[in-house]
Amino acid sequence: MNQDTALKDLIAHCKEYGFIFPSSEIYDGLAAVYDYGQLGVELKNNLRNYWWNAMTRLHQNIVGIDAAIFMHPLTWKASGHVDAFSDPLIDNKDSKKRYRADVLIEEQIEKYNEKIKKEVEKAQKRFGESFDRELFISTNPRIQEIASKRDALHKRYVKAMEENNLEELRQIILDEEIVCPISGTRNWTEVRYFNLMFETKLGSVAEEASLIYLRPETAQGIFVNFLNVYKTGRMKVPFGIAQTGKAFRNEIVARQFIFRMREFEQMEMQFFVKPGTEMEWYHYWKEERMKWHLSLGIPAEYYRFHDHDKLAHYANAACDIQFNFPFGFKELEGIHSRTDFDLANHEKYSGKKIQYFDPETNESYIPYVIETSIGLDRSFLAIMSFALREETLADGSTRVHLKLPYILAPIKVAVLPLVKKDGLPEKAKEVLELLKWDFMCAYDDKDSIGRRYRRQDATGTPFCVTIDHQTLDDNTVTLRDRDSLEQIRLPINEVHMYISDKLHIKNYLGSPKK
Amino acid sequence: MNQDTALKDLIAHCKEYGFIFPSSEIYDGLAAVYDYGQLGVELKNNLRNYWWNAMTRLHQNIVGIDAAIFMHPLTWKASGHVDAFSDPLIDNKDSKKRYRADVLIEEQIEKYNEKIKKEVEKAQKRFGESFDRELFISTNPRIQEIASKRDALHKRYVKAMEENNLEELRQIILDEEIVCPISGTRNWTEVRYFNLMFETKLGSVAEEASLIYLRPETAQGIFVNFLNVYKTGRMKVPFGIAQTGKAFRNEIVARQFIFRMREFEQMEMQFFVKPGTEMEWYHYWKEERMKWHLSLGIPAEYYRFHDHDKLAHYANAACDIQFNFPFGFKELEGIHSRTDFDLANHEKYSGKKIQYFDPETNESYIPYVIETSIGLDRSFLAIMSFALREETLADGSTRVHLKLPYILAPIKVAVLPLVKKDGLPEKAKEVLELLKWDFMCAYDDKDSIGRRYRRQDATGTPFCVTIDHQTLDDNTVTLRDRDSLEQIRLPINEVHMYISDKLHIKNYLGSPKK
Repeated sequence: MNQDTALKDLIAHCKEYGFIFPSSEIYDGLAAVYDYGQLGVELKNNLRNYWWNAMTRLHQNIVGIDAAIFMHPLTWKASGHVDAFSDPLIDNKDSKKRYRADVLIEEQIEKYNEKIKKEVEKAQKRFGESFDRELFISTNPRIQEIASKRDALHKRYVKAMEENNLEELRQIILDEEIVCPISGTRNWTEVRYFNLMFETKLGSVAEEASLIYLRPETAQGIFVNFLNVYKTGRMKVPFGIAQTGKAFRNEIVARQFIFRMREFEQMEMQFFVKPGTEMEWYHYWKEERMKWHLSLGIPAEYYRFHDHDKLAHYANAACDIQFNFPFGFKELEGIHSRTDFDLANHEKYSGKKIQYFDPETNESYIPYVIETSIGLDRSFLAIMSFALREETLADGSTRVHLKLPYILAPIKVAVLPLVKKDGLPEKAKEVLELLKWDFMCAYDDKDSIGRRYRRQDATGTPFCVTIDHQTLDDNTVTLRDRDSLEQIRLPINEVHMYISDKLHIKNYLGSPKK
Repeated sequence: MNQDTALKDLIAHCKEYGFIFPSSEIYDGLAAVYDYGQLGVELKNNLRNYWWNAMTRLHQNIVGIDAAIFMHPLTWKASGHVDAFSDPLIDNKDSKKRYRADVLIEEQIEKYNEKIKKEVEKAQKRFGESFDRELFISTNPRIQEIASKRDALHKRYVKAMEENNLEELRQIILDEEIVCPISGTRNWTEVRYFNLMFETKLGSVAEEASLIYLRPETAQGIFVNFLNVYKTGRMKVPFGIAQTGKAFRNEIVARQFIFRMREFEQMEMQFFVKPGTEMEWYHYWKEERMKWHLSLGIPAEYYRFHDHDKLAHYANAACDIQFNFPFGFKELEGIHSRTDFDLANHEKYSGKKIQYFDPETNESYIPYVIETSIGLDRSFLAIMSFALREETLADGSTRVHLKLPYILAPIKVAVLPLVKKDGLPEKAKEVLELLKWDFMCAYDDKDSIGRRYRRQDATGTPFCVTIDHQTLDDNTVTLRDRDSLEQIRLPINEVHMYISDKLHIKNYLGSPKK
């Protein structure tokens, strides 16, 4: 299956089974915004809880907060977002379409790579098995010429970006003869910066209404509450503050399903440490976060670290954890050593002393910060894209198997009376009554038992409990496991304990897989 | 304690113990916006989960969704919010302050009531024990005069509001000689409508950017997804869709702490029924929702129903569940019979057929809707204001006792080594390790055990487990109950089960209190 098909199948499956719907679909949708359906919301909530419990319950020195989306506008001045959270945009005067100048140039670089690839493929066909790919690339004059143009462009582009040189970005676009894909012309405007923050106005009194922003990240809600949490929570460095919540970015190019949305949810933890110890903690959190991902049971080859070559102005170390999405390895989580950039700036802009007093050394200092920042929607996409598969079974039939980690599955147990008569539905409802207080259950008595199993497989339900005629005699049921397809016979009063044990968080986070 | 003091004490307690902080406090706050601190976020999450589980897990015919805050703007045209979700505002030309015209008039009516009250109190003092209050009110000419002015004003006001007559509202203000509290003048502008929805712009291309709104309620996210959920979830009427999430209203007068905020969280469930059966379901959900509130163990006298006299244009029956807040009985939850108003309007505006096909009668129809809509922040405030109390103990000492329902408490167990030596901290950490996977725990080894108990009482922790020297001998601990103050001695390996049993949701929702 190629990449496009895989993503398309995933989107179709998400819609068909109520995981994800396009937002406001009856009004033909809203670009880059999605709604979570009846199964999606459960998976999303389970994933959020799994992160939250791992961070707060299992770390005595990490607490949570829930700051509002609306914040004082000076917050975003202090954080640098008002001045620097923007993309360089250019308009084509004929089509009136707007583009990111950096993306146009990056696509141009990609075109050179495509050209090289084509030359190599052509040669490979010509020479067959005797073809030495490396030798060809390093000696063929045509390829050498393309590669040298590409490298020159790349160098010029990186320099322009580093210097925020908008005129040079425009000149590159003109020199490379890049055309608008719509109009086909090179009739370009100047390049200008466009801020990604959404604006709105708070307060009704015209003279008093203030321009505020929808937060573009949850991190600043933690920093502005640092003093309150540290003091009222009697926290001692090193300690962390965790938060989950919505953030908003007016992306020019929002795409790849829920990978990049204009409204999305973050799970962030800022860990406050003594200056000078930050590298130790940076490496600690790199390891810890990778362990968390692996604890869900997705094979290690789906993940990789990607160290940043170019560091943001506030960071002294930074890496991503990338996931192998249907469209390749892309960022899933960032781990950043942010120094004291944020707290120091809030101190400067607020005029409040934002420092930690160390009772052991009697010194005050601004803590350094290690940030772990993960997209909840991206994690959802990563897990769904790993989980969805079509399998051929021993008997030659096929099934759609949504291999979600059991602890994240939207529905934990399906309770199924074998037939809709002979008192089996009544018995099944007794079983449901025993389970429903602790597990999200489905009750299904429509269609053949085989079709009902298939439906639960496709929505990722780990356990099917079937009530048959023997149940009426001896109070036992069959319990079917989604992955192994094994069926065991269990007394009704042991079902709750069996499922509880399998779903316990300690099975996941208590012994993380390597 | 008077009402103002009670609210002030509550606000102070919420800040001191990390339940609620003013938003962006280091920047001197943002009006009517609050952040939840390290304990507040846990209480809020527990409350949300309690509602969610009651709605979805315990009802096989209710499922959840999580729609985005951003929705297609036509949604709000169809729902009536673009045209009618607004307040009548009037400005004083001297102070430049803006007021709600309706609130100014309602305050004026209240002034007449105050006058009557004063007259009665004066007479009561004069006549002493022989005073017949009812007789005095019904016969005293001065009071009769004030009451008749008040009734005439009330009648005129209600008529103007019903007719949306803004000129008449202004004329009432002039005739009643209402002055601006700031400037003291009667120099008023016209009355105009002001929409309460926050606006922002989506998309970067100037010509294509569209004006969108931050949703003022979560209900419409359910209605626009009705078709998707009904079809992909194979739902059969009657069924419900539940949703929790942020909503935003640009309130002119936002006040009373977290009671009325500009950014707040709703928990809504829309229940779809066959037309003609809606009154039966309306009464069912009135009862069900009251049972849910009472299940938390707050006495019944804190709650009351309040039927709406004046129905919204879309409703054919509506009531509130009110709670006795520190500032009196106010709306906590609304239960509304919304007819087919919303679905029919979305059908009209979207051009899509939004109907349910009844397989038993082979008929299609637009379902009627019963809505239950509760404010998460208001519930938080209700429960905190009930819970906070100061108590005098048997020994004459006092304690602050935060009597939260155990199932909602932010921290479930505090693990306390009696002293910080003799191996007790190590033993305590073994106990913590047994509990932390399932319960939010605190570990505290600072100060005397008495002070530590007081701290847990003030944050509402139901159980304190104390590890003492005897623990080292026989592996037992004392377990102290927050409310009864009883201490029992338990083997360590029975602590988990003991606490699990006490916190089980079935103890609450399985046998609701009358």
